[in-house]
Amino acid sequence: MSYAVAVRLAAGLILAADCRTNAGIDQVSTFRKMHLFGREGERQIVLLTAGNLSITQNVIGLLREAIARDESGPGSLLGAPSLFACARLVGGALRETYRVDGEAMSQQGAAFEASFLLGGQVRGEEHRLFQIYAPGNFIEAGEETPFFQIGETKYGKPILDRMLRPDTPLDIAAKCVLVSFDSTMRSNVSVGPPIDIACYAANSFHLERRRLAADDPYLLSLSRSWAEGLRLAFDQLPDPDWLREIGRA
Amino acid sequence: MSYAVAVRLAAGLILAADCRTNAGIDQVSTFRKMHLFGREGERQIVLLTAGNLSITQNVIGLLREAIARDESGPGSLLGAPSLFACARLVGGALRETYRVDGEAMSQQGAAFEASFLLGGQVRGEEHRLFQIYAPGNFIEAGEETPFFQIGETKYGKPILDRMLRPDTPLDIAAKCVLVSFDSTMRSNVSVGPPIDIACYAANSFHLERRRLAADDPYLLSLSRSWAEGLRLAFDQLPDPDWLREIGRA
Repeated sequence: MSYAVAVRLAAGLILAADCRTNAGIDQVSTFRKMHLFGREGERQIVLLTAGNLSITQNVIGLLREAIARDESGPGSLLGAPSLFACARLVGGALRETYRVDGEAMSQQGAAFEASFLLGGQVRGEEHRLFQIYAPGNFIEAGEETPFFQIGETKYGKPILDRMLRPDTPLDIAAKCVLVSFDSTMRSNVSVGPPIDIACYAANSFHLERRRLAADDPYLLSLSRSWAEGLRLAFDQLPDPDWLREIGRA
Repeated sequence: MSYAVAVRLAAGLILAADCRTNAGIDQVSTFRKMHLFGREGERQIVLLTAGNLSITQNVIGLLREAIARDESGPGSLLGAPSLFACARLVGGALRETYRVDGEAMSQQGAAFEASFLLGGQVRGEEHRLFQIYAPGNFIEAGEETPFFQIGETKYGKPILDRMLRPDTPLDIAAKCVLVSFDSTMRSNVSVGPPIDIACYAANSFHLERRRLAADDPYLLSLSRSWAEGLRLAFDQLPDPDWLREIGRA
């Protein structure tokens, strides 16, 4: 399993993915699941992946080949006229992968599972965020839905639901996303560091990117502070009076 | 979907289940998923259910019929010599349900999905906790694993992972379980109040039970305090310096 989150705010985008891949618990490896496509000052595109690694790597491979063939053409993530057009390119690469591998995978019982988050900005339009499903169809984040998740999404969803609003500043959203990873990593061993995180300020056409290792001082201090803060919040909750007698019996 | 949690502590047991059932979002109903079997002073048994309601109700029906036939017999939850024997009775009722309904359900594309948590104490042995799967097989909670969850388990798992220890007092564990429900209900509409919660102090052979409605004052104050406490914990987290410039740009 993997975990990836992308947040679309008025101020820009935060995208993050873990790097752990597993095919059974005795085959755990580290792979990049954040892929960057950009031209400084002109467009910045981040693609996060989850699911079967052979599928997601093949999709990335096809997209990179299209760039190599004709970087500025409409079939290239660097040449497509909009982020919507880029999402269609990712969808097309997924369908091409399914055309080649789908039947054989199905015959051998391997599910065709893959999903992508595509965020970024192409000069001439606003920053946008898409979620692309295995069949190549996709949806776009709107005002009401500030974030998308793929992979092992549930453990880390409550904190995002509580804290993220369209007007949340980027650094606060980044903090929230990392807390969401902290919760997920505590409860599920298949998600683990390093965490790749990218921060994109709207209309900057420049991407800030960090890889946070397991021993990253910021990640450690965040994890410790959050554990302490939760403990404090928990200790200050009202006691269930109706159980007090039996509880301390 | 449903959500149920059972915690086994040195001090006793906490068991809780929501009451929402859905077969598609336009068919949401309220059903009891906590079933009690007890003889005051002699044994107390709580059975929590999740999954296909026709299966779980049939299992409960078979178990109640066995009690009606011979209350003190080894085939009755009120007569079986141990909680382990009770878990086998639940497993047997599941297999009987599968024998009758399994093939027709499978032919019509309905998955045979059901799971149970069985907690309690039979005089002569310690309080125990079992999780029973759809095929009727089961596992028991040990020292290292203080809780089991069934149904929509992931949203509410992080808080249980963080707070529960074998020596946690019963009232604190009850509070923790209700916070776990609060997180789950915020992130998933298929889990909702009322919440049935039962508290069993070891060797008491007496069960405290409450049904908490959506407007229960304690549940509301817990939910509000937790939201405020989380917000405070979040606000006090260290800021990501490496994003401060871009974040406030």
